[in-house]
Amino acid sequence: MGIGTAIAARLEALAAITDEPGRLTRLYLSPAHRRAADLVASWMEEAGMRARIDAVGNVVGRYEGTDPAAKTLLIGSHIDTVRNAGRFDGMLGVVAAIELVGRLAAQGRRRPFAIEVVAFGDEEGVRFASALGGSRALAGRFDPALLDERDENGVSRREALVAFGCDPARIALEARNPANVLGYVEMHIEQGPVLEREGLVVAVVTAINGASRGRVRVSGESGHAGTVPMALRHDALAASAEMVLEVERLGATTPDLVATVGRLEGEDAAPNTVPGAVSFTLDIRSPDDGVRHAAVTALSRSIAAIAERRGVAARVDIGYEAPAAPCDARLQVGLADALARLGLPLRRMPSGAGHDAMAFSGRLPFAMLFVRCRDGISHNPAEYAAPKDIETGARVLADFIDHLDT
Amino acid sequence: MGIGTAIAARLEALAAITDEPGRLTRLYLSPAHRRAADLVASWMEEAGMRARIDAVGNVVGRYEGTDPAAKTLLIGSHIDTVRNAGRFDGMLGVVAAIELVGRLAAQGRRRPFAIEVVAFGDEEGVRFASALGGSRALAGRFDPALLDERDENGVSRREALVAFGCDPARIALEARNPANVLGYVEMHIEQGPVLEREGLVVAVVTAINGASRGRVRVSGESGHAGTVPMALRHDALAASAEMVLEVERLGATTPDLVATVGRLEGEDAAPNTVPGAVSFTLDIRSPDDGVRHAAVTALSRSIAAIAERRGVAARVDIGYEAPAAPCDARLQVGLADALARLGLPLRRMPSGAGHDAMAFSGRLPFAMLFVRCRDGISHNPAEYAAPKDIETGARVLADFIDHLDT
Repeated sequence: MGIGTAIAARLEALAAITDEPGRLTRLYLSPAHRRAADLVASWMEEAGMRARIDAVGNVVGRYEGTDPAAKTLLIGSHIDTVRNAGRFDGMLGVVAAIELVGRLAAQGRRRPFAIEVVAFGDEEGVRFASALGGSRALAGRFDPALLDERDENGVSRREALVAFGCDPARIALEARNPANVLGYVEMHIEQGPVLEREGLVVAVVTAINGASRGRVRVSGESGHAGTVPMALRHDALAASAEMVLEVERLGATTPDLVATVGRLEGEDAAPNTVPGAVSFTLDIRSPDDGVRHAAVTALSRSIAAIAERRGVAARVDIGYEAPAAPCDARLQVGLADALARLGLPLRRMPSGAGHDAMAFSGRLPFAMLFVRCRDGISHNPAEYAAPKDIETGARVLADFIDHLDT
Repeated sequence: MGIGTAIAARLEALAAITDEPGRLTRLYLSPAHRRAADLVASWMEEAGMRARIDAVGNVVGRYEGTDPAAKTLLIGSHIDTVRNAGRFDGMLGVVAAIELVGRLAAQGRRRPFAIEVVAFGDEEGVRFASALGGSRALAGRFDPALLDERDENGVSRREALVAFGCDPARIALEARNPANVLGYVEMHIEQGPVLEREGLVVAVVTAINGASRGRVRVSGESGHAGTVPMALRHDALAASAEMVLEVERLGATTPDLVATVGRLEGEDAAPNTVPGAVSFTLDIRSPDDGVRHAAVTALSRSIAAIAERRGVAARVDIGYEAPAAPCDARLQVGLADALARLGLPLRRMPSGAGHDAMAFSGRLPFAMLFVRCRDGISHNPAEYAAPKDIETGARVLADFIDHLDT
């Protein structure tokens, strides 16, 4: 069986493990997460690893190296899902890592460094307010206050961990010493349409985008749609429309920046009323924090100028800021070299979506490999990556591991 | 007491008659409507008229002329209100007409033609689905099927009329023979900001705007706000924003046209999602039906072009069309002449809002006089017209009546 087909078969087995019959939903520390973790642990054991479930619910399988003094390479992804998920997001990276180690073991091969395959359990952040609990623990960044977060049924993270068989008091002990870690490498579907449009199969990720998220509120003057002449209007929706196009223009003209107005709402909107107040969201992302901050500044100026010209008020509130998480240069080169050896063109791109690797930023080196997915669809049952593409991604990762220096 | 002050006092008395304590709400055929109708009828009697409540709930007061063969002049407005209304919309025209006739009577003066003051009862169309029931009856355009319309409590228009003391079977008999009617003249607050901005007090209405109302649905492609590059997006909201600005541009560049997007909504909108589908409303009005139809056609073309360029689909549905109701040329001249005699500048403007006079279009000649109101506010407790301005309007109407030929 080719590795792509083998991975696809394991993905199918995992996809059957769900908390909601009829669709794939596997929230952190749920019964389905427990069954999936057990299955993954058994696969790890079959693949020659020593598997355990750590204090925060991650499944960790260790394949020893030949040099006990060498640092450890972490590879993996996550096995929790959003509600009504696809079967590739996260699981692909876990299953591919297990398959690769299994092939090393079957060939009786070891690298000087140990390999640990990690199946994170809390990447999506659906059950509790915070995300990346599993990777934060490995990064030594797990805030114990998160243990008091409660899910929609009132169950705390602490209670859920204990019910899962974990000891919350030991989470701090999961922190990896950077001196002992070569890095963390994750293979993931792109979750976007770029590779497919460009006819490429894989890409080396440069950084996980930083993000600014916020809200703009525009206050004009409401009025009767029949009696207020156009020249006397201070239409909050028309002003907002101009701002929405400015957000789009900024994204389109700034390299590597994406800028989105996802939601726009009128207050007391009615078909026969000139809109008096409108709010809309902002989501601005870039792998370069300087570019992103400059974009937010430029946009705030443009919005103020549009508001002033139209005689409306506009307030921009950026409520959330996350810095970009750049991928490790050496690990990127390692992946690029693997692509070159396999005769694949080098495509580098930032990740617009968040990933566990973000939790390692500035603490442990990390890199990511994207595999193309169909139509860029993710977080949806229609999510799909072809076995042939998965095979290519797995071969890149295998080659990377084969050539990685300690 | 000056006529402006006298009118303001009567408006205050009427404003106290409400179905909802603490705010002015007087729906068609409600207990408050009954009490207001009785008060208006008593005022008509005091002013020398013979008053009755007709078969559709209008209060009609008749002041005879000296020539029994002459046609009758109808003047008035309505005494029903929206919920949480102002005290001027409608009531001003009724009270001013009563005051004017009362002054004629006090001076022992009669015109050759009879004057009937009408206080319509169903202009706002709040209680039942249809509006203008009272004026439709006088126009001979009352559809008996309307009698089966039910209010939110399940009470039919027929039942409400009977409870009010009216005989629905006699509504058809209220139709006025155009051969016997000189015309209908209504004084009303502008409900818009134009006169105030221009420092003018009154305007002669040219027509009640025709209207096209509908909905545009834009379907693009939803996607992840982080992972879909700008160049690959088919953002339904950005496309809609461009269309909203096109609606505004069309209104701003077409004389006498107003074009409004009052409400815009995304489907399944989320801050971190490129919008996949957006709907918005259209409201396009003009005193000239040709101008309005050309605008709708031009707009549909522009929307299609924007959609095509952006790779989204757009469907325009115009669900409602009302033709413009032009004011009678001779009556307009009569009002303009009155303005000139009083030394007032002539400002002509269309009415963007609907009025009872629309029901007469093509059947009975009509004209309207607008009086400025504060900040263009209407359908709101803050609605206000100054007694001085009301006095000016009343003097114009009095002069018009004094000079009208039979």
